[in-house]
Amino acid sequence: MSTMKLTLLTDLYELTMMQGYFKNHTNETVIFDAFYRKNPSGNGFAIAAGLDQVVDYIKNLTFDQKDVDYLRSLNLFDEDFLDYLSNFHFSGDIYAIPEGTVVFPREPLVKVIAPIMEAQLVETAILNIINHQSLIATKTARVVYAAKGDGIMEFGLRRAQGPDAGIYGARAAMIGGCIGTSNVLTGQLFDVPVKGTHAHSWIMSFPDEYTAFKKYSELYPNACILLVDTYDTLKSGVPNAIRVFKEMREAGIPLTFYGIRLDSGDLAYMSKQARKMLDKAGFEDAVISASSDLDEYLITSLKDQGAAITSWGVGTNMITSSDCPAFGGVYKLAAVQDENGEFIPKIKLSENSEKITNPGNKTVFRLYDNETGKIRADLISLADESFDSDKDLLIFDSVETWKKTTLKGGTYHVRELLVPVFKNGACIYTSPSVMDIREYCKREQETLWDETRRLTNPHQVYVDLSDKLFRIKTGLLDQMSQGK
Amino acid sequence: MSTMKLTLLTDLYELTMMQGYFKNHTNETVIFDAFYRKNPSGNGFAIAAGLDQVVDYIKNLTFDQKDVDYLRSLNLFDEDFLDYLSNFHFSGDIYAIPEGTVVFPREPLVKVIAPIMEAQLVETAILNIINHQSLIATKTARVVYAAKGDGIMEFGLRRAQGPDAGIYGARAAMIGGCIGTSNVLTGQLFDVPVKGTHAHSWIMSFPDEYTAFKKYSELYPNACILLVDTYDTLKSGVPNAIRVFKEMREAGIPLTFYGIRLDSGDLAYMSKQARKMLDKAGFEDAVISASSDLDEYLITSLKDQGAAITSWGVGTNMITSSDCPAFGGVYKLAAVQDENGEFIPKIKLSENSEKITNPGNKTVFRLYDNETGKIRADLISLADESFDSDKDLLIFDSVETWKKTTLKGGTYHVRELLVPVFKNGACIYTSPSVMDIREYCKREQETLWDETRRLTNPHQVYVDLSDKLFRIKTGLLDQMSQGK
Repeated sequence: MSTMKLTLLTDLYELTMMQGYFKNHTNETVIFDAFYRKNPSGNGFAIAAGLDQVVDYIKNLTFDQKDVDYLRSLNLFDEDFLDYLSNFHFSGDIYAIPEGTVVFPREPLVKVIAPIMEAQLVETAILNIINHQSLIATKTARVVYAAKGDGIMEFGLRRAQGPDAGIYGARAAMIGGCIGTSNVLTGQLFDVPVKGTHAHSWIMSFPDEYTAFKKYSELYPNACILLVDTYDTLKSGVPNAIRVFKEMREAGIPLTFYGIRLDSGDLAYMSKQARKMLDKAGFEDAVISASSDLDEYLITSLKDQGAAITSWGVGTNMITSSDCPAFGGVYKLAAVQDENGEFIPKIKLSENSEKITNPGNKTVFRLYDNETGKIRADLISLADESFDSDKDLLIFDSVETWKKTTLKGGTYHVRELLVPVFKNGACIYTSPSVMDIREYCKREQETLWDETRRLTNPHQVYVDLSDKLFRIKTGLLDQMSQGK
Repeated sequence: MSTMKLTLLTDLYELTMMQGYFKNHTNETVIFDAFYRKNPSGNGFAIAAGLDQVVDYIKNLTFDQKDVDYLRSLNLFDEDFLDYLSNFHFSGDIYAIPEGTVVFPREPLVKVIAPIMEAQLVETAILNIINHQSLIATKTARVVYAAKGDGIMEFGLRRAQGPDAGIYGARAAMIGGCIGTSNVLTGQLFDVPVKGTHAHSWIMSFPDEYTAFKKYSELYPNACILLVDTYDTLKSGVPNAIRVFKEMREAGIPLTFYGIRLDSGDLAYMSKQARKMLDKAGFEDAVISASSDLDEYLITSLKDQGAAITSWGVGTNMITSSDCPAFGGVYKLAAVQDENGEFIPKIKLSENSEKITNPGNKTVFRLYDNETGKIRADLISLADESFDSDKDLLIFDSVETWKKTTLKGGTYHVRELLVPVFKNGACIYTSPSVMDIREYCKREQETLWDETRRLTNPHQVYVDLSDKLFRIKTGLLDQMSQGK
């Protein structure tokens, strides 16, 4: 995370509400859930990402003198509240679903249990970070899926929505399955592979294309990918590249990793022609990589047409998730602790039943099929529930309750997704490295049926409520429709 | 700009090319132009933004020991080049169009004149920053235009693509015409107004809605905007708000800035009903503000239906420019200095004539009508040209050259848009405050005909080439089509 202090990366209303609670001496412990309602880009799942940056944010959450002075200058806050802020630190608990995990709508990705003043303050930054990185990780998973095993490189920095969108977007893209990024700063910060060769300007700064290629091959003989479309791809670029490769071969330079990059024109046609030319010259192992406004749909279409491309540089559409540039995560009050220490479930009504929140102190269990290892369903339950996988388990849709399934005891196993991250304000979680999260994310996606990974109109995984949670929810709904 | 050093916020290929130039002892001075090809969101213009952050980036452009160590670890760079990097600083000139200026496709927004190693390094970060902020400023101008004088508040932080997208996106939104942002950190960094009241969680944390409103009104009597849709807007929210306003009135508390916020439901219907209820209770000056997935089209449509809303909180769609989440700026080589110090124009060919670059050391002149003050056309010319507005000026479209217009001498005046920002590596430019840029941007938009500001299918402003530039360009094209 940027070394800039992010304490004031919050909406003003979090602070005006905090002062409200402060003045009312109401600082009871509450539970907020961060969750989302709809998978981005029509996908069948999302990939949780950003937790490591949330951890950094919470650890550094203090108001320094400059922050307090600024808030004072707004003429909204009293000195007693500003005093409180200067001594502020986060004292609560946070649970979260680890980065790289496959997740579904309505599941709490992050659960904050803290005095209401603290839980309210952290809303905006948690949403900002989780929404962004989960969005890009999910979009990347789609692009990687479309590439059917070819490598995807993240090339979007220049079109990202500001420096952080480039830095953490590339981090999320690595989690989602890229083999590398062009972003050097992301490479430095997160120890992930960085990739890149040269631009058109390299070619144009030499008297001719051949000389530019030749010079490049002398400099980087072990990673010699030549950009062939500056003047004319098939008439000039590919022939010049072949000439240089031949000279390398004749000079006894081992051709380990070499080839061409296409950046314009019809990539299907160009790649097939280039492949023929390279093969005919005896360069069957020359790589053909491509970049140029790619996304999961164009890659699918190009592969369908037999494009001879095995390495893809994806920029704008992935780093901005261009067809769906926001993740839509929300942060909702789920429970308030009473004077006896018990959590009283809270619910937010809406005319749209999809928008009615799930009340109470909850967790998420994932039910896997023993035989296939695939996900059978997820179960949102109360945090103190447990499920014995030796016993039959009846699960049912929480809206269309007649949709029921029984999981036979002994045929499934259960995993709790939420893990403790902060306890009484102390971080008790160590984030894995990005490359380890990437590997985990790959395995996570293997727990999905291929029908759920399909890019268009995928099969939706069942996310049901436990019987106990369902009864609490319907009870609260009945109560509210009778009351007031 | 974030205090994080952004030197490594670059694509790896900038560094591999730099080493290439270093090894070849080719470090001639070159000119790169940053420009874009298409206005975002179908708009008739764009608003240049981000220059202040580019200035910060260039000023702080040094490789520290950690950066050099990281680059060494990649096994791509030799010690002599790493030595060069440890002593690196930017020594060139930069010209730019000031922030807040109305700009059009193909105009150089930033022009870098520097030794090729330096000019190449800065490509990625310049594009990242300018692309992001120009995108959001332009999108905001659309939303502000749709609101026809109502205030637009920027509420998008939680859905922005990471912290910087929130921070600098809100900065750009202020330039584009917002009256304030919810983003406290942007308020602190750029001294712009911050806005906000309370969320649904405030209401839900009290035993009932009336109590929540009452408490809020006691805390913030001077900015008492109550969120009325937690339970039932018209049956509960608005009546409770009116009850609180009445009690304030009875207690003699001056009702200076007060009202309600709608955040769900049909905003046209709800606002008209709420207006009637408020008016009937004698609160004709109560503000009705709204938020809920707004953009320029929904605001236009709601206003068409007579929605009684005068204050709009716009989030996701503005902070991500959701219908067009990337600006598409590019950075192209325009000239290379020869041994006599002369700039030799360079051109990049493309099958798409829109993608052929404009060669040479250029600038942009804006031609205004003396009578109306409106823009008649822009003229991209060579940097050493000048135009005498006492004389007739023939301008013509550079693609469809038969499209010609003569500006009569004495009926127009001329302004050069590019201003010097760095000279020999030293910054000679002082950025105005964001609020001053905002005012300037408002005046800038007044130089456009309303037909160009229309949200859909607007009239395109002419951007022509000077006769001299046109001849150089066609000469180069002829030369290239004959050559090789």
